[in-house]
Amino acid sequence: MTFAFSIDATAGAARAGVFTTPHGPVETPAFMPVGTLATVKSLDPTELRALGAQMLLGNAYHLHQRPGDGLIRDLGGLHRFMGWDGPILTDSGGFQVFSLATLRTVSEDGVEFRSHVDGSRQFLTPERVMQIERNLGADVIMQFDHVVPGQAEASVARDASERSLRWLARCRAEVARLDAVDAPRPHAQALFPIVQGGIHAELRREAASAIADMADWPGYAVGGLSVGEPKPDMYAMLDVTDAALPRHAPRYLMGVGFPEDLVEGVRRGIDLFDCVAPTRMGRNGAVFTSEGRLNIKRATFRADPAPLDPECTCPACARFSRAYLRHLFVSEEMLGMRLLSLHNVHFLVSLMRDARHAVRAGTFDAWSTDWLRRYHSRPAPASAP
Amino acid sequence: MTFAFSIDATAGAARAGVFTTPHGPVETPAFMPVGTLATVKSLDPTELRALGAQMLLGNAYHLHQRPGDGLIRDLGGLHRFMGWDGPILTDSGGFQVFSLATLRTVSEDGVEFRSHVDGSRQFLTPERVMQIERNLGADVIMQFDHVVPGQAEASVARDASERSLRWLARCRAEVARLDAVDAPRPHAQALFPIVQGGIHAELRREAASAIADMADWPGYAVGGLSVGEPKPDMYAMLDVTDAALPRHAPRYLMGVGFPEDLVEGVRRGIDLFDCVAPTRMGRNGAVFTSEGRLNIKRATFRADPAPLDPECTCPACARFSRAYLRHLFVSEEMLGMRLLSLHNVHFLVSLMRDARHAVRAGTFDAWSTDWLRRYHSRPAPASAP
Repeated sequence: MTFAFSIDATAGAARAGVFTTPHGPVETPAFMPVGTLATVKSLDPTELRALGAQMLLGNAYHLHQRPGDGLIRDLGGLHRFMGWDGPILTDSGGFQVFSLATLRTVSEDGVEFRSHVDGSRQFLTPERVMQIERNLGADVIMQFDHVVPGQAEASVARDASERSLRWLARCRAEVARLDAVDAPRPHAQALFPIVQGGIHAELRREAASAIADMADWPGYAVGGLSVGEPKPDMYAMLDVTDAALPRHAPRYLMGVGFPEDLVEGVRRGIDLFDCVAPTRMGRNGAVFTSEGRLNIKRATFRADPAPLDPECTCPACARFSRAYLRHLFVSEEMLGMRLLSLHNVHFLVSLMRDARHAVRAGTFDAWSTDWLRRYHSRPAPASAP
Repeated sequence: MTFAFSIDATAGAARAGVFTTPHGPVETPAFMPVGTLATVKSLDPTELRALGAQMLLGNAYHLHQRPGDGLIRDLGGLHRFMGWDGPILTDSGGFQVFSLATLRTVSEDGVEFRSHVDGSRQFLTPERVMQIERNLGADVIMQFDHVVPGQAEASVARDASERSLRWLARCRAEVARLDAVDAPRPHAQALFPIVQGGIHAELRREAASAIADMADWPGYAVGGLSVGEPKPDMYAMLDVTDAALPRHAPRYLMGVGFPEDLVEGVRRGIDLFDCVAPTRMGRNGAVFTSEGRLNIKRATFRADPAPLDPECTCPACARFSRAYLRHLFVSEEMLGMRLLSLHNVHFLVSLMRDARHAVRAGTFDAWSTDWLRRYHSRPAPASAP
């Protein structure tokens, strides 16, 4: 069996598992760094591996625009192209079409829009997206879906959710058609459905149930959250999907990457996370620490000999002071963005490893309660005089 | 003895040696990557070490502007600040004052100018520069000198060269004074004099001889070359300094970093080189290869599965195709600048290691002749259809 998910231990809804893929196992819960354009911005695959990253993301929409999915296929697929031999998941571009592209026209057939790169007129359908994701050759491919803003009213959210379900069936059929007519692929790909439904519990429940009725999927994604809705609404939706989705497959919460959301997600049965936050924040000088967030550009860090986070073991914290990292940002030196990105990715990867250990040790409930309490009651970060 | 230079083998004027410093040995000939602002742009000290870099440069002028040499002293010195425990050399800022700063007024006392960072009025003297370099705490510190353009006429070049000699005496006296009155330093620093004289053989000869008469220095630098003069003029000056400088100490050719100039320099008795070229070119998409220079942004590399340089063993060439690296540049992804900088630094570091091996093996004359012949007769870089 090419894809498998084994659950080693549980703690309430939380699980510690192993998701097996053609490019190796992923110990869950896990945070997956995002390499939108076939690169986790500023970082090298070898350093991602060294800090414990197991699975990376690419983006079908972006890679279709540049450099082109056909080119990546001809060069041996996304793994070889980006020099990462571990598991990869490609997002379908649904979110990007609805957030980045302009002049969208949505029909039952698909979405017509202007490319955010060159302004060209483009048309994406569920079938076309499956062809793109096949060309890219990731281990996990996401269905093409219709994403609406987090606070969309029920009728809009229902329309998009039901369309996403119909598009899921078309994605599945296209994968089957390609399997039958296309040249053999170097490895199997797992198609993940996406539960949509905005912040409407009933819609989420219906979508989860319709998806589960359609097939026994290798994994289930929850999309359209952390897109502007209040956090309690997001957590409420995760309670709904936790109850409604099958428990024997991995669950992936899309685009959610703040530390507290990861811990809250694991408590609600989520196994996989991804987000651009750690790298985007890192490029802006902002870091997660055990004492809360800080921005290294602040003048208070000018002469601070301490590392970013005194509890951290990442390569940036082991070797460099806040004063040095601030100097790099003030001087607009690339190494600064690199080291802060590395630290932030390490922070989330390590957080999920800690969660996994706690589930296996039977201490997850206390660990997560304590972690969230500390995180929410954090003092201002310490700094030298 | 804290500083020492042992010569293991020679081949004509070329030498294979070991320059010992308080932070370890440097096997020569060697190329020293430049970390102007306490960072070799885009690269991490650990990857520099891994590719064979032995000694790095910092710049007193730049670090005095930002973040300030006093701050670096208070944080334990430049080695700790930038996370590099190998040898460091700081340039004095003479070149920067005469190339970057504006509204310069040169007097016998020093140079008044406007900072290129904040426009503030500043005054640097030989004494002040010695204090700055002491605060930074590099292993090798360069004298403050008066640099003129490469094609300056003899009277201008003589004036600057003679002033540089007088300033050298003041630098030496200030180092002695600081040694007597200042708190003990964590390690000794070696002051290197700089031979100036433009492209005027007689001036170079006079400067070299005056410097050698002043003291038995731990090393000798040749400055003011590769600043606009024709290459044959530069090589002619190196013939002059090779004959005129003592042979028992290392010779450092400042700011010269094109591969052919390194090989020509070694043939003329130079042991140490530095230049921003490998990292600056890398950020612009240009690379040195065994087949000559290429620019990765060219459309011809769009689908090229070959590495940057088929003969290269660097981490970029071992894992990534030209097509991927071109994609990173087209997409303005930082990893592209990083990987090309890494490749270029590796190229020069490896070239000097090869030169050293050839001197030790007794094959340097044939090796360098062959290398230069190949380099100058290189075809256009190969590319996939």
